[in-house]
Amino acid sequence: MKKKALLILILFSLIKVNSQDRKEFFKSPDGVFLISSDLHIHTVFSDGEVWPSIRVKEARREGLDLISLTEHLEYLSYKNDIDIKDRNRSFQISNAMLTKNEPLMIINGSEITKPMPPGHFNAVFVKDSNLLINPDGEKAMIEANKQGAFVFWNHPNWVENRDDAIARLDKLHERLLQKKLFHGIEVVNEHTYSEEALALALENNLTIMGTSDIHGLIDWTFDKEKNHHRPITFIISKNITKRSIRDALFSQKTFVWHRDMLIGKKENLLPVIDKNLTITSNGYYKKIVTIKLKNHSVVPLKLKYTGDYTFHSYGSVIEVPANDELLITVKTKEILNSIEMPFEILNIIVEPNKNLKITKTVRL
Amino acid sequence: MKKKALLILILFSLIKVNSQDRKEFFKSPDGVFLISSDLHIHTVFSDGEVWPSIRVKEARREGLDLISLTEHLEYLSYKNDIDIKDRNRSFQISNAMLTKNEPLMIINGSEITKPMPPGHFNAVFVKDSNLLINPDGEKAMIEANKQGAFVFWNHPNWVENRDDAIARLDKLHERLLQKKLFHGIEVVNEHTYSEEALALALENNLTIMGTSDIHGLIDWTFDKEKNHHRPITFIISKNITKRSIRDALFSQKTFVWHRDMLIGKKENLLPVIDKNLTITSNGYYKKIVTIKLKNHSVVPLKLKYTGDYTFHSYGSVIEVPANDELLITVKTKEILNSIEMPFEILNIIVEPNKNLKITKTVRL
Amino acid sequence: MKKKALLILILFSLIKVNSQDRKEFFKSPDGVFLISSDLHIHTVFSDGEVWPSIRVKEARREGLDLISLTEHLEYLSYKNDIDIKDRNRSFQISNAMLTKNEPLMIINGSEITKPMPPGHFNAVFVKDSNLLINPDGEKAMIEANKQGAFVFWNHPNWVENRDDAIARLDKLHERLLQKKLFHGIEVVNEHTYSEEALALALENNLTIMGTSDIHGLIDWTFDKEKNHHRPITFIISKNITKRSIRDALFSQKTFVWHRDMLIGKKENLLPVIDKNLTITSNGYYKKIVTIKLKNHSVVPLKLKYTGDYTFHSYGSVIEVPANDELLITVKTKEILNSIEMPFEILNIIVEPNKNLKITKTVRL
Amino acid sequence: MKKKALLILILFSLIKVNSQDRKEFFKSPDGVFLISSDLHIHTVFSDGEVWPSIRVKEARREGLDLISLTEHLEYLSYKNDIDIKDRNRSFQISNAMLTKNEPLMIINGSEITKPMPPGHFNAVFVKDSNLLINPDGEKAMIEANKQGAFVFWNHPNWVENRDDAIARLDKLHERLLQKKLFHGIEVVNEHTYSEEALALALENNLTIMGTSDIHGLIDWTFDKEKNHHRPITFIISKNITKRSIRDALFSQKTFVWHRDMLIGKKENLLPVIDKNLTITSNGYYKKIVTIKLKNHSVVPLKLKYTGDYTFHSYGSVIEVPANDELLITVKTKEILNSIEMPFEILNIIVEPNKNLKITKTVRL
Repeated sequence: MKKKALLILILFSLIKVNSQDRKEFFKSPDGVFLISSDLHIHTVFSDGEVWPSIRVKEARREGLDLISLTEHLEYLSYKNDIDIKDRNRSFQISNAMLTKNEPLMIINGSEITKPMPPGHFNAVFVKDSNLLINPDGEKAMIEANKQGAFVFWNHPNWVENRDDAIARLDKLHERLLQKKLFHGIEVVNEHTYSEEALALALENNLTIMGTSDIHGLIDWTFDKEKNHHRPITFIISKNITKRSIRDALFSQKTFVWHRDMLIGKKENLLPVIDKNLTITSNGYYKKIVTIKLKNHSVVPLKLKYTGDYTFHSYGSVIEVPANDELLITVKTKEILNSIEMPFEILNIIVEPNKNLKITKTVRL
Repeated sequence: MKKKALLILILFSLIKVNSQDRKEFFKSPDGVFLISSDLHIHTVFSDGEVWPSIRVKEARREGLDLISLTEHLEYLSYKNDIDIKDRNRSFQISNAMLTKNEPLMIINGSEITKPMPPGHFNAVFVKDSNLLINPDGEKAMIEANKQGAFVFWNHPNWVENRDDAIARLDKLHERLLQKKLFHGIEVVNEHTYSEEALALALENNLTIMGTSDIHGLIDWTFDKEKNHHRPITFIISKNITKRSIRDALFSQKTFVWHRDMLIGKKENLLPVIDKNLTITSNGYYKKIVTIKLKNHSVVPLKLKYTGDYTFHSYGSVIEVPANDELLITVKTKEILNSIEMPFEILNIIVEPNKNLKITKTVRL
Repeated sequence: MKKKALLILILFSLIKVNSQDRKEFFKSPDGVFLISSDLHIHTVFSDGEVWPSIRVKEARREGLDLISLTEHLEYLSYKNDIDIKDRNRSFQISNAMLTKNEPLMIINGSEITKPMPPGHFNAVFVKDSNLLINPDGEKAMIEANKQGAFVFWNHPNWVENRDDAIARLDKLHERLLQKKLFHGIEVVNEHTYSEEALALALENNLTIMGTSDIHGLIDWTFDKEKNHHRPITFIISKNITKRSIRDALFSQKTFVWHRDMLIGKKENLLPVIDKNLTITSNGYYKKIVTIKLKNHSVVPLKLKYTGDYTFHSYGSVIEVPANDELLITVKTKEILNSIEMPFEILNIIVEPNKNLKITKTVRL
Repeated sequence: MKKKALLILILFSLIKVNSQDRKEFFKSPDGVFLISSDLHIHTVFSDGEVWPSIRVKEARREGLDLISLTEHLEYLSYKNDIDIKDRNRSFQISNAMLTKNEPLMIINGSEITKPMPPGHFNAVFVKDSNLLINPDGEKAMIEANKQGAFVFWNHPNWVENRDDAIARLDKLHERLLQKKLFHGIEVVNEHTYSEEALALALENNLTIMGTSDIHGLIDWTFDKEKNHHRPITFIISKNITKRSIRDALFSQKTFVWHRDMLIGKKENLLPVIDKNLTITSNGYYKKIVTIKLKNHSVVPLKLKYTGDYTFHSYGSVIEVPANDELLITVKTKEILNSIEMPFEILNIIVEPNKNLKITKTVRL
């Protein structure tokens, strides 16, 4: 009996060590993990410019939890030099690089690459990419679904497909939706954000996705000096297991970080922001109370205070920098025990042209 | 006749050289100059910690056009060591440092320092500060007005006077207003911004003022690493002469730069922003047009686009950094010759809880 | 006749435009060009981690004039996936990317990869890499020479070959030298500098080479935050043509930039430093003269003044930062018309444990 | 008995807390404290531009242990405005600002300001500055000595006194030396370093001093962006008491930090550098050993290795940045248990044109 307790203790400490190793972009709400992912990536095995090893190293440097090297099934730039017999090679090579305890996970995936309609679709959590090769896109998607894959529509706003860059459904997409052959949609792809794709996601119960679609180098494509970074889809998962992550994707439990914006459903983002924006009192001086807003996340929070009080130094628009704090002084007129502070978060989008709203109760 | 033309040309080029020497915080709207000023400053001649020479050097380093060393008439911290016979000394010493061609100007001023009500008032453009010494604040203000001074109410939100830090008028202030004994009000003082003071300014036709009220060192008080800086009142003046600047102050032609905010009347700020935010087209690709927003000012412009189009990379909230530009791509659906782009500027306040709105026409 | 003059003028201006496009790491001494090069580079066509296109883009970003993708002939990491029928592919692919007017040039090259002795040798300016494949290293080198290639010994200090990392000649190397089968030696390879290789170069009239030997990404391998950069061999060439550059390599006209060091023969480095360190007088105050040292190069110059005067602010060791200047004040005791200023340059190595010395005459 | 032990424990922890509060510019050699000091400072009480409070705050911001506000006795710029009855006022005002537990200490001092010869002399640790006012400089120095003051010669290289800026003794100085009326000499004053003053110090057993002689603001005078800072004299004292510090000054136990240089007697600097440069092994790979050089001080250490081994990446000149470390790899030819590493430190001056040498034994 004692031995078992000891074992549990040891295991628990191991788990703790591993979870410490993961990069925390955000504090996680209780009971879930925020899995950082990029599920749209290319290498020399389709039309990318690097060997899969670079993709693993890029992901490690950024502290990602999950990637998928989703080579085009139909578009192979270097076929004269690279003899791709097995479409799982990119996954095999990258996955073999992983060490036992590292936080990074890799899942097998492919890009079904058809002319519009239907356009390009990523299938991740596939078992054998070779079987997805099919001149008929719908059949390829049926096979992907048969393998249990999570399938999402890539860059529905792609200007090469839609010359006005407005994402919209064709008849074919409506049929694919009806048959539940795809489950997600890229609202963010590389540098682009599509408000119309967000609308489609919300109207059709599609999972909101954001990906890098990287072909060259991450460092060259996303300019750190401008605070740019690769788009990351955070998957709100009960466990750090592939099974749980796949379930979360199918349940639309995601939000996307693009530039300084967060994009996702209100129900997904509200608990995350509630956890990552903590507000405490530093006490009154006369009838002015100093309030500390602390941002525990990598994303600056651009707040518009919508309550009735006024501040002693700022107007109603304030910014709490990433992983930093801001002190404000609130003129509450009387000495109070607590106040409600309602905010609109100007850089968090929950619906087309609609920002997240949150009200925090602050004990004074 | 020809000689005269030549002379005019030479003189003109001289003037141009001098105006180039001035620091341009903003591009000036046609026909006016934006005079950068700080009209509330202390030295060892009241309760400041530096000799007047440091104030001149601080102003030069920041490129200010105009300062006033406004020593307390009633509060002299070092009177045992500094024997102040003449209350104009601080002005005399600083003014004597100015060289012929430098852009910095200094005007004589004093702080009439009474308990609330009425509180503290600055009189600038005074002729002889000694004559303002009077146990009765109202009489001191009458004398200041007799000398032609511009008088403004200092920090009406001062927590030592108003324990809730809410600026409001007492009976005495109403009488002083009726008698037109003061003409401006500090909406910004050192680190504080008072929305209630802004309301008072607008309701009572008072000039909107922002000042440093500096006692220690500017560099230590306003943290450059947080992009803080001393509050600056920009005076919209027809000429760079003291007479014209004084007229502009009396005509409420000001706005204030505090942290990353601009505060002022809509009629004063709109032409300034119209000049400093230029928007041009970089051309269409398919039906997406690239638009360059250029900010010619020292203040970042935090824009909320309120029109009907959507952008290809950003949501509706964007920021054009100070003295920099931002490229956005607009999905206009059809190829157009021009568009109207309406914006709310989130960091420019024209009324309590009301931001500046501006619509720019962009030729495509 | 006139037309010809015009044509020459036009051509001259074109050449000028192009030479302006080149990045100038140093000012060139009169009559020569300093060709920046990295002649030891790998891609997925041997054991590197990127497609050749990345190597072209890396070189463009750094402003290099010349590279060679020198794949191992005998070591192919990815042969199961990449079917290399033609060993010139890496060159063909990269060379096809070049545009008409860009400054970057690419030459064909290969790494003859044998166990020690003789170890690894690069052959550049080869005509057909396929013909260099030979189990006998000496025969491979004979073929390279037959093709007119410039051949140099790679990392003679490689710890996998020499467990003490001391570069030295084996019998076989002596024979190869006697037969003049190789002409240069890497004194710098990736992160390493070998003083013993420098000695071998000087004793055996070998061209001093420094290369990145890059397999991964340049940005990840050389840490900009520590002011590291890829090693660059500067080739002192009469013209910006491949022919002239090849001649310069055979004539030992090179020096190497590694970290903050320059390494090369005195006769090559002295004219470069003489051109890039200019010293002028800002005039006397009493009997102290202010001297401006200007460094026109990308390398900081760490100077030890070895003359008899003393300085008014510094000791005898001073540093003129890269592309910057330093003001010093010299106490010349009398007012002089000119002085001789002798310096040892602590970060420029011309022989093992011997720095470059230079004396500049300064008109006062 | 137990109570006493507890009391000692508590006291010890209190002392520890206080010594932690001091800024450690260097690790202290065992048994001594390195007291950071600036003993030449001006305020509005002579010809400086700030009230004494600013000097206290400047010293606190830099973490100094000891300052003295050494007003000119004979040169009072603002005498028409500031009525200096008591020449101890500057000391009194600043000293009254100190709180019980802060590390900063202030001692009374004055500058005896005579034409050359003898020039300017600072007397610190004076009891009553008023008594030092005397038209005869020698008599003023006799009075200072009577009060137990430590007296040092200010800027003997001042170009207004010596038009060649060469420090040298006049007859009068020789007499003052013989009478032991002064005990130290400024080798560094504000921006200047005088090698000749260093020679005079060593020849005449004078304490080596470096001071800011600040009149304006420290931040404006010493440019942080160039890594400049005010000159600091480190006093090697047995205890952190004024008595012990005074003894150390009389015993020539000092060295000076000026720009990136340290200047002092070899016997004073050697133990400091021995403590602040620690060298440890990270182990062998084959016959190359990785060595970690760690610099525990605020001064970069510019080392020239003078031993027989060569390094695997660097030449013999290396720099260990301030409060940082550098890894080098040494080619020891055989696997050794320990090596001797002799260095010359190029930015530490112990005699005119002579650097500190140090040999460290490294266990491998």
